[in-house]
Amino acid sequence: MTADRSSGPALAVVGATGAVGSVLLPILSQRADVWGDIRLIASARSAGRVLAVRGEEAEVLALTEDAFEGFGPGDVVIFLTPPEISAQWAPVVTTRGAVAVDQSAAFREDPEVPLVVPEVNAHAVRIRPRGIVAGPDCVTAAMIAAVGALHAEYALADLGVSSYQAASAAGRAGSEALRRQLSLVAGTDLGEKPGDVRRAVGEDTGPFAGPLALNVLPWSGELREGGWSSHELAVRAETRRILELPDLPVAVTCVQVPVLAGHSLTVRARFENRVDAAHAREILEGAPGVVLVDDPAAGEFPTPADAAGTDPAWVGRVRASLDDDHALEFFVCADNLRKGAALNATQISELIAGESA
Amino acid sequence: MTADRSSGPALAVVGATGAVGSVLLPILSQRADVWGDIRLIASARSAGRVLAVRGEEAEVLALTEDAFEGFGPGDVVIFLTPPEISAQWAPVVTTRGAVAVDQSAAFREDPEVPLVVPEVNAHAVRIRPRGIVAGPDCVTAAMIAAVGALHAEYALADLGVSSYQAASAAGRAGSEALRRQLSLVAGTDLGEKPGDVRRAVGEDTGPFAGPLALNVLPWSGELREGGWSSHELAVRAETRRILELPDLPVAVTCVQVPVLAGHSLTVRARFENRVDAAHAREILEGAPGVVLVDDPAAGEFPTPADAAGTDPAWVGRVRASLDDDHALEFFVCADNLRKGAALNATQISELIAGESA
Repeated sequence: MTADRSSGPALAVVGATGAVGSVLLPILSQRADVWGDIRLIASARSAGRVLAVRGEEAEVLALTEDAFEGFGPGDVVIFLTPPEISAQWAPVVTTRGAVAVDQSAAFREDPEVPLVVPEVNAHAVRIRPRGIVAGPDCVTAAMIAAVGALHAEYALADLGVSSYQAASAAGRAGSEALRRQLSLVAGTDLGEKPGDVRRAVGEDTGPFAGPLALNVLPWSGELREGGWSSHELAVRAETRRILELPDLPVAVTCVQVPVLAGHSLTVRARFENRVDAAHAREILEGAPGVVLVDDPAAGEFPTPADAAGTDPAWVGRVRASLDDDHALEFFVCADNLRKGAALNATQISELIAGESA
Repeated sequence: MTADRSSGPALAVVGATGAVGSVLLPILSQRADVWGDIRLIASARSAGRVLAVRGEEAEVLALTEDAFEGFGPGDVVIFLTPPEISAQWAPVVTTRGAVAVDQSAAFREDPEVPLVVPEVNAHAVRIRPRGIVAGPDCVTAAMIAAVGALHAEYALADLGVSSYQAASAAGRAGSEALRRQLSLVAGTDLGEKPGDVRRAVGEDTGPFAGPLALNVLPWSGELREGGWSSHELAVRAETRRILELPDLPVAVTCVQVPVLAGHSLTVRARFENRVDAAHAREILEGAPGVVLVDDPAAGEFPTPADAAGTDPAWVGRVRASLDDDHALEFFVCADNLRKGAALNATQISELIAGESA
């Protein structure tokens, strides 16, 4: 097997059968086609399945060295895999000269791996000493295009974020856990007495730290020093890297909500310069990857139900602080599987494909 | 009819048949009984219903002047009614010399009406030139005991709040709308494609500005200047009043989530003094009306499913800012119908009853 580069560089998608993979393949069919051969790869368990991409059927290959046969300089391999798989296999790909685009946390804090959101720091993709480019966490991805556009105008001084995270960020297991829990509580009178939701859902809460139906869980990730979660610290570190503000104060609280798709965030941003809400709205209207929906009188504001299945970050509720003329508040929703993972990895891969065009 | 004061002052509950009333009557049965006669009052539509209070049945009276016959100095009337009803009927009660305890927004910004959360500013209840005492909004009530205790130690300088509000804050219509919507989406594959939740729920979103099942709505209240909602401005104004900090910077974003009971909030508090997370936890552990649940390694943090049906504000996720040694982050959950309404009104009424004891 050799990659066919006659019509462009080859692309491989590792983890093609997972929750993010099932979103990425249709994205490849919808966007301008820059790819020659597209190869789908997954664990041995999923190998042999046949999936559609660009209107054609493709058999999923097992993740082995052979799966990358023919891949070389100019080609791209997207990893939609757990960090340990990415850490093991990205070097296999880069040894061949291909570029690894990793959507896991494996390389996000590696100073020799650029962390890229194309709307904000596309330039960073070009400097990749290890041949690897990382995409950010889905919470960072949801807000960074909007925050980056405002930073370019006003110079960010402090960022506060509270998340409203969708279950699908925990993969198919997350979505299935929430759907199962909703079936257990819908049509009942549960939800107003202490413990009744816990009893109805039982011990099997899937990938979550408690019942998610009719509930909110202020936890995602693992415990780190000072009571912070690894997820909260990751959003802080990634925001600093992408904006190239290594000392930016960032405070994040990660909260899971009973939504299937679409992360929402409240954002408070303080700037070095004075801000004006009307001008900030103009900046957001013109920002790539951002759509402004901000007419509460007409019932128009972003919601995850509207953002799910779409590409942009939807921003609204833009307000100047009443007490601090350097601070703005806003609300943002984005599809955690698209901009938060599959779309961003595709955009990064297209930047790399464009280098050899 | 005359109020029987042989065993204590008389209490009337106006709006006894509503969502908050149905929570308040059991609370009266559970707490130390300081009341003589307890009279239940509601709209003419609900008059004649028989409800249990203190283990006895009581017939609901229609809201007329006659319903307050016999009420006078030392007696208390709790209003669990819309602001226009409270505004109309509280003066009828105070003319008789009884005290009106109003849970609506009618008097919360009136400088001659104290706004009271007993754990924080019980002293304020005694100075009531109009004979009226107001309780706060349910979002303010959820966090103010914790914020007040920290303020007493560290001197609050700036407050940022994002809410995760339960449907029952919109009364029975809110709970019913969410239950109905959940029945429409549970057991389906909806929730991951744009528009599918909106189509399933339809136009009838109850008291909410959009579908709430599998969704999050960054809106509650009415539009005010600068894009702020009346609810957000109310939390700001009430926090300033209760803490007696008229110039405190407060930024609030109100967001509704698909939870039936229990408001949650992320809180960022900056103080005049340096803070220490371990000492802050000690303060919160000793604060009246607050219970600390903060052991994420053991899966212990507050959730609305656990807070629903309970009295305290449950606080956890207490973290010192990594970038600002004057700032703390925490998460708080409280039952919006109890501490957010029925319980606080009962506590205020008991303070007033205690004056004549």
